[in-house]
Amino acid sequence: MTTGKDFEITDLGPCEIDSPLHRFCHPDGRTFSFTDDSERILVDHRVASLSGDAGKADGFASLERAGARRKIFFDPAGTTVGIVTCGGLCPGLNNVIRDIVMTASLRYGVRRAIGFLYGYRGLTGKDSHIELTPEGVSEIHELGGTILGSSRGSQDVGGMVDRLEELEVNILFVLGGDGTMRGALALIGEIKRRNLEIAVVGIPKTIDNDFRFMDRSFGFLTAYSKAIEAIDSAHREAQAAPNGIGLVKLMGRHSGFIACAATLASNQVNFVLIPEVPFELDGPNGFLEALRKRLELRDHAVIVVAEGAGRELFGDEDRQRDASGNIVMGDIGALLTRRIKDKFSEDGTEIILKYIDPSYIIRSIKASPADSVLCTGLAINAVHAAMCGKTGMVIALWHSALVHVPMLRAIQERNVVDPESAYWLSVLSTTGQPVAFY
Amino acid sequence: MTTGKDFEITDLGPCEIDSPLHRFCHPDGRTFSFTDDSERILVDHRVASLSGDAGKADGFASLERAGARRKIFFDPAGTTVGIVTCGGLCPGLNNVIRDIVMTASLRYGVRRAIGFLYGYRGLTGKDSHIELTPEGVSEIHELGGTILGSSRGSQDVGGMVDRLEELEVNILFVLGGDGTMRGALALIGEIKRRNLEIAVVGIPKTIDNDFRFMDRSFGFLTAYSKAIEAIDSAHREAQAAPNGIGLVKLMGRHSGFIACAATLASNQVNFVLIPEVPFELDGPNGFLEALRKRLELRDHAVIVVAEGAGRELFGDEDRQRDASGNIVMGDIGALLTRRIKDKFSEDGTEIILKYIDPSYIIRSIKASPADSVLCTGLAINAVHAAMCGKTGMVIALWHSALVHVPMLRAIQERNVVDPESAYWLSVLSTTGQPVAFY
Amino acid sequence: MTTGKDFEITDLGPCEIDSPLHRFCHPDGRTFSFTDDSERILVDHRVASLSGDAGKADGFASLERAGARRKIFFDPAGTTVGIVTCGGLCPGLNNVIRDIVMTASLRYGVRRAIGFLYGYRGLTGKDSHIELTPEGVSEIHELGGTILGSSRGSQDVGGMVDRLEELEVNILFVLGGDGTMRGALALIGEIKRRNLEIAVVGIPKTIDNDFRFMDRSFGFLTAYSKAIEAIDSAHREAQAAPNGIGLVKLMGRHSGFIACAATLASNQVNFVLIPEVPFELDGPNGFLEALRKRLELRDHAVIVVAEGAGRELFGDEDRQRDASGNIVMGDIGALLTRRIKDKFSEDGTEIILKYIDPSYIIRSIKASPADSVLCTGLAINAVHAAMCGKTGMVIALWHSALVHVPMLRAIQERNVVDPESAYWLSVLSTTGQPVAFY
Amino acid sequence: MTTGKDFEITDLGPCEIDSPLHRFCHPDGRTFSFTDDSERILVDHRVASLSGDAGKADGFASLERAGARRKIFFDPAGTTVGIVTCGGLCPGLNNVIRDIVMTASLRYGVRRAIGFLYGYRGLTGKDSHIELTPEGVSEIHELGGTILGSSRGSQDVGGMVDRLEELEVNILFVLGGDGTMRGALALIGEIKRRNLEIAVVGIPKTIDNDFRFMDRSFGFLTAYSKAIEAIDSAHREAQAAPNGIGLVKLMGRHSGFIACAATLASNQVNFVLIPEVPFELDGPNGFLEALRKRLELRDHAVIVVAEGAGRELFGDEDRQRDASGNIVMGDIGALLTRRIKDKFSEDGTEIILKYIDPSYIIRSIKASPADSVLCTGLAINAVHAAMCGKTGMVIALWHSALVHVPMLRAIQERNVVDPESAYWLSVLSTTGQPVAFY
Repeated sequence: MTTGKDFEITDLGPCEIDSPLHRFCHPDGRTFSFTDDSERILVDHRVASLSGDAGKADGFASLERAGARRKIFFDPAGTTVGIVTCGGLCPGLNNVIRDIVMTASLRYGVRRAIGFLYGYRGLTGKDSHIELTPEGVSEIHELGGTILGSSRGSQDVGGMVDRLEELEVNILFVLGGDGTMRGALALIGEIKRRNLEIAVVGIPKTIDNDFRFMDRSFGFLTAYSKAIEAIDSAHREAQAAPNGIGLVKLMGRHSGFIACAATLASNQVNFVLIPEVPFELDGPNGFLEALRKRLELRDHAVIVVAEGAGRELFGDEDRQRDASGNIVMGDIGALLTRRIKDKFSEDGTEIILKYIDPSYIIRSIKASPADSVLCTGLAINAVHAAMCGKTGMVIALWHSALVHVPMLRAIQERNVVDPESAYWLSVLSTTGQPVAFY
Repeated sequence: MTTGKDFEITDLGPCEIDSPLHRFCHPDGRTFSFTDDSERILVDHRVASLSGDAGKADGFASLERAGARRKIFFDPAGTTVGIVTCGGLCPGLNNVIRDIVMTASLRYGVRRAIGFLYGYRGLTGKDSHIELTPEGVSEIHELGGTILGSSRGSQDVGGMVDRLEELEVNILFVLGGDGTMRGALALIGEIKRRNLEIAVVGIPKTIDNDFRFMDRSFGFLTAYSKAIEAIDSAHREAQAAPNGIGLVKLMGRHSGFIACAATLASNQVNFVLIPEVPFELDGPNGFLEALRKRLELRDHAVIVVAEGAGRELFGDEDRQRDASGNIVMGDIGALLTRRIKDKFSEDGTEIILKYIDPSYIIRSIKASPADSVLCTGLAINAVHAAMCGKTGMVIALWHSALVHVPMLRAIQERNVVDPESAYWLSVLSTTGQPVAFY
Repeated sequence: MTTGKDFEITDLGPCEIDSPLHRFCHPDGRTFSFTDDSERILVDHRVASLSGDAGKADGFASLERAGARRKIFFDPAGTTVGIVTCGGLCPGLNNVIRDIVMTASLRYGVRRAIGFLYGYRGLTGKDSHIELTPEGVSEIHELGGTILGSSRGSQDVGGMVDRLEELEVNILFVLGGDGTMRGALALIGEIKRRNLEIAVVGIPKTIDNDFRFMDRSFGFLTAYSKAIEAIDSAHREAQAAPNGIGLVKLMGRHSGFIACAATLASNQVNFVLIPEVPFELDGPNGFLEALRKRLELRDHAVIVVAEGAGRELFGDEDRQRDASGNIVMGDIGALLTRRIKDKFSEDGTEIILKYIDPSYIIRSIKASPADSVLCTGLAINAVHAAMCGKTGMVIALWHSALVHVPMLRAIQERNVVDPESAYWLSVLSTTGQPVAFY
Repeated sequence: MTTGKDFEITDLGPCEIDSPLHRFCHPDGRTFSFTDDSERILVDHRVASLSGDAGKADGFASLERAGARRKIFFDPAGTTVGIVTCGGLCPGLNNVIRDIVMTASLRYGVRRAIGFLYGYRGLTGKDSHIELTPEGVSEIHELGGTILGSSRGSQDVGGMVDRLEELEVNILFVLGGDGTMRGALALIGEIKRRNLEIAVVGIPKTIDNDFRFMDRSFGFLTAYSKAIEAIDSAHREAQAAPNGIGLVKLMGRHSGFIACAATLASNQVNFVLIPEVPFELDGPNGFLEALRKRLELRDHAVIVVAEGAGRELFGDEDRQRDASGNIVMGDIGALLTRRIKDKFSEDGTEIILKYIDPSYIIRSIKASPADSVLCTGLAINAVHAAMCGKTGMVIALWHSALVHVPMLRAIQERNVVDPESAYWLSVLSTTGQPVAFY
């Protein structure tokens, strides 16, 4: 039984150095805790997937299991690791930084760890990195944000690889979303062209939980847990006013996971709107009419909307308004607020709408304990992989197992809420909202 | 030694009924726990205030101490109490409702307790009240908001007193701010005109802590405690970006107490702007220049602004823009955001500003334990006072003592941050900001 | 490709009634969200498991996927569901109760839901149940504990089935651990003997996370998240004293998951002791000597011990002391405290040891948001399964999929920390402790 | 109008140096924010206290107001400040340390700040202190405990003053309880004998809130706020069992403030037992009978007991048992547990009692925001006072004003719950318990 080629992990060369982790072997001589490259996990664990002949020429698609290897590629004494954090804030960034430094320095004994400042920008200029020591990072998991700073957007690839060469970086850990991983792939291409022995390992960071091959991405659990505070506030505000409406916009550009999970956790939401399920505002089966009925029945309503929901609603008129600067282009929270107010104003019904956008408050908090555990697992295993010279891959959590996924595959597809799934049904069951607004 | 007349409490008549609280007297015959009307607390406890002859013809101004009285005015068996909550949400409203009902029903044994819905609106219509029983309210302190709902604005006074008569309400507890208390005074006037025996007792509610004669108003401590989460978020966002600026707008229309206390508690704020201390934006000693210097020095900055700060900055130009609908009139958060962006755009300095307005999230949470204790004290003593037929008064906490204050006096003046006080000095000392932006 | 027989689910008969959940089907006629009995998940998703011929005569062992079925067995209009909670408290019990009632009543429209009081005791007497309505349970997830009460131990099986008959219960939901499930199997046996159409569906409850076929059991995440508070306290106490030792005993009779996860999440633990890894106290490689070295080096130490750790240490001497009543039999916290104090007393080293047992505080809190989501998933799908007449099974979460597991299989084996796993290695890597005390 | 001599503050000499805080004066020339020594607050602000002739020969007893003075005694450039923390942990210790260092270093510009390790022990040996810099302490308020460590008990006075001389300490800030303050007074005596110019200023630390002249001591609010978690746990455990009893022991050796405040805040306690109100266990009006009645009525009960309650119950028999080592001498929690179990065992009533002692978890957490604000006020003003050469005094919060109190006076009397006060009545009113168990 073999492996789908698409999920093969690239490495820089054979591993011939004994891992310093042998000291964690039991004194009675039993060897243990090491994982072998041949250990693989099925991508699809449904029985039905085993029966088909569907294009799996060389066997079932599977993923290499993460874990410490007996032999490693880099000699720790001569190894420098670099870390960079990119994109928006996400709970757990500092945990990952911390645990990479701890594992690389204390367990493997690498020579040096450095952190690049403000995302890929830090790879372009001089003096834009800091030293990372076990003492210096030992408490940073108590802080939200990232001690390295972050930024968006790409930088000159050649310049960045120049910088890695100059600083003699052997391993670069990249924390970011799909845009960041595309940047990492460009780096890897240039590294290959120059025939350098630099490994680039990604740790997928997406608060929206939209990374494929992640049961859950780090920060997501913390985020939806915090989001229920905003929902509770919306609920209290809505209850306190006649025809009170609480509207909460949550993160989720392409995937409504935060909106769904916060809804399931809070039990206070009457309507949840996500990017994966288009909806109409007007008409007898539209959202606004459903809202009207809810107010008639219960006198208040709580709405959660993912920021990426309702893209189909932004018609020419809205876009024109955007151009004039009045409405931020595509802000579904603002659009809903306006349309709801207009609707009830036309009906002559007095409503009180409170709109809450807690995004900055959510994404900048420290990781919850459950995300700390996840971050530790991702960070330790990212170091294990990188020390073996594996490159162009990300650490992922798939069906409860930590695995290696080629970077290119990891970003080919997004994780989204399947509107035909039992999961979405459980959300509908919790809110009691109609299955569709049409 | 006597009392300043201005602080005398009005009552409906002599107290001739034995308090049912006598059962809390010690079995050995010792009487205790009862408070006498003659117990009074000085308004001004500075030694210097004792030496003057300053118009205190009938002695030093003082306040009647709250507490259970030995004799009461209303016969519990025939007494109905009503409760109404007005104005914006504030942590602790449900605690006060709960403890009024508990004390009136379980300790005094009143016949009936009702709650009017949606503020004074509930006193105008039929079927707009609910029964309040000990069982029904026993857990409501676990919820933010108010189970009675709230609303702003005044209603027809005659109609409201009609409703009180119709429902045979003997005592009305009013939870609200100064506007609400003005409404209560109108009610009292009409009650007097009709020669009714209805006591109206206020429990001052102002999340901004701007009530005179309150060491701290309920909800204020909860509010500034919660506000530091937003400040921490602003701090993490600011730190994570080159030239990152975190701007947090906190509650405080006339008084900057929430902004100051949150600043003192968080130790992360570089600039705090409050209504009591006017400031200029431009010029070499203006706020914007100070901000520029801070960024130059430390690369990031955290600003806290009270919503009422900087009124003097809203010139004709701003007002015109407001009229056109672009900027909400007098929104200091929006104005600061715009002016900061303009300033650095002119300078050619790239900044990243994150603006956080956590108001709804703060005001709708449940009371912290310390506010729960305060609410219990206010509620129990409000019932003690009302059962004695005291009316036109509020329960207050003055120099650590619970006292009675005439409603009219209570709202004559606001509690504000004194810019010449040691308190404001301690805020300046914490932020390190210049003493003035001029 | 088929199924291992051992994992087949028993049912009461064919499903011939249309599910009322059809209303959640999309108005455009697309059917969706329903799950078919034929959908199955592999028990073992390692590629290696597919290659063997190891006794899987009828195919790979697999589990039936949970979810709503198109056809159901019980006619909701005539169905009564009962719920019982057994054993120790665990965060999430009220969430499961709530969501069973909500789903059964509001989504399926069952006639009646009742809750038995104080565990199986409630099935033995008259008047020992309460009605459960959507209104009555709508807020109970905000409370720790269980509104039904709980108890340990078994009751007369015949009497309990009599009671189910008497109350015309069609479905019994049982929340509890392996002992409780054994009780449920006894009930099922008696139900079968009497040829009754009563389905018994289990929701595995084990705060220790020692249920097989559960990625994580509900309450576990909440528990270890809360446990880190106790660890932080132990850390602060230890740091504050010369030779300060903080010792925290956490739950985990057979499995050290809470101890391990809390250790990973807190980053403050120097030694973690779990039931799965035996250890010696004395000798040059024993625990006490390692502790002495740590104190010498860093002046303080934090130890986490699972309650079931070190069973091998309770020699005859200890047992004798237990019999005399001085030491609670097998209390590893007390034993460690005594042995540590003796050790350093012998050495003449003054230490200060603070022992913290936070178990009651941890297990009685309300479920965290992440556990709320899990509870909702378990409860909704337990109702789906039960309405189909499935019986003698539990709802489980296996490799990120909700599945049905025969009750008998579910309790045959425990989930334990594998001392040869990458997981335990990551714990060792975090504490820095020796791989063994021998 | 003058001052009671007993409250006069001693100083080291006249203040002749301009305060560097003049830079906080307003640029328009207005002077402000400075406080004058002549500003005093009445000790007793009851009107009745003004009328008596009661031995106040030289006027009403009053307290000097804290605050920055225009002139100071110590030249900052040559000043070294030392800090020591003594006794048990208390939330806020790190806040006070931090804000003393910040104020002394950044606002006054003192030359050096040092922290002595492990309480007075740190004043006895070499190398037992650390440097305290603004950078080093800037985040320590986020941590519970004390970064300086602590210890109990006294040390050789001469040796300690030797050490202060050797390190050229000009100001010693002492954080501790009454025992610590007695130690400080001994130091002051020796300093005086040697004619040294060393100021010793105390910041009262008592989690029990039993310091006289403190509206509330720092850490107290945090403590009772955290304590309600344990009460909630006891409540859930009690509710979950037939005849369930939850017993929580809280801190409070001489004063029941934590027990009372936690009771008022939680609304879940049925019986609260404090040191100030003796009680009997047996007899028809004893506590055990009242507990029995409660169980009969409601099937569960929650008891909160302060650690110092019920001293009168420890008869000879108990003491003998203590001597044999079985019961910790005077542990009211153990005694109550035993007596309750015995009582119901005699009655043949099965009960389930869960005993929770959360003391270590409470006292080691970080300060809540409200305590942070208080700590900042105490610390800043302690520095103000010390820079003026004031010595033998503590900073206190009296009737909402920060004041100076002579150390000797501060510890002469304890703050206790007055069983004849409205406060205790409000506690009784909340629990509904009998006024006495006799």
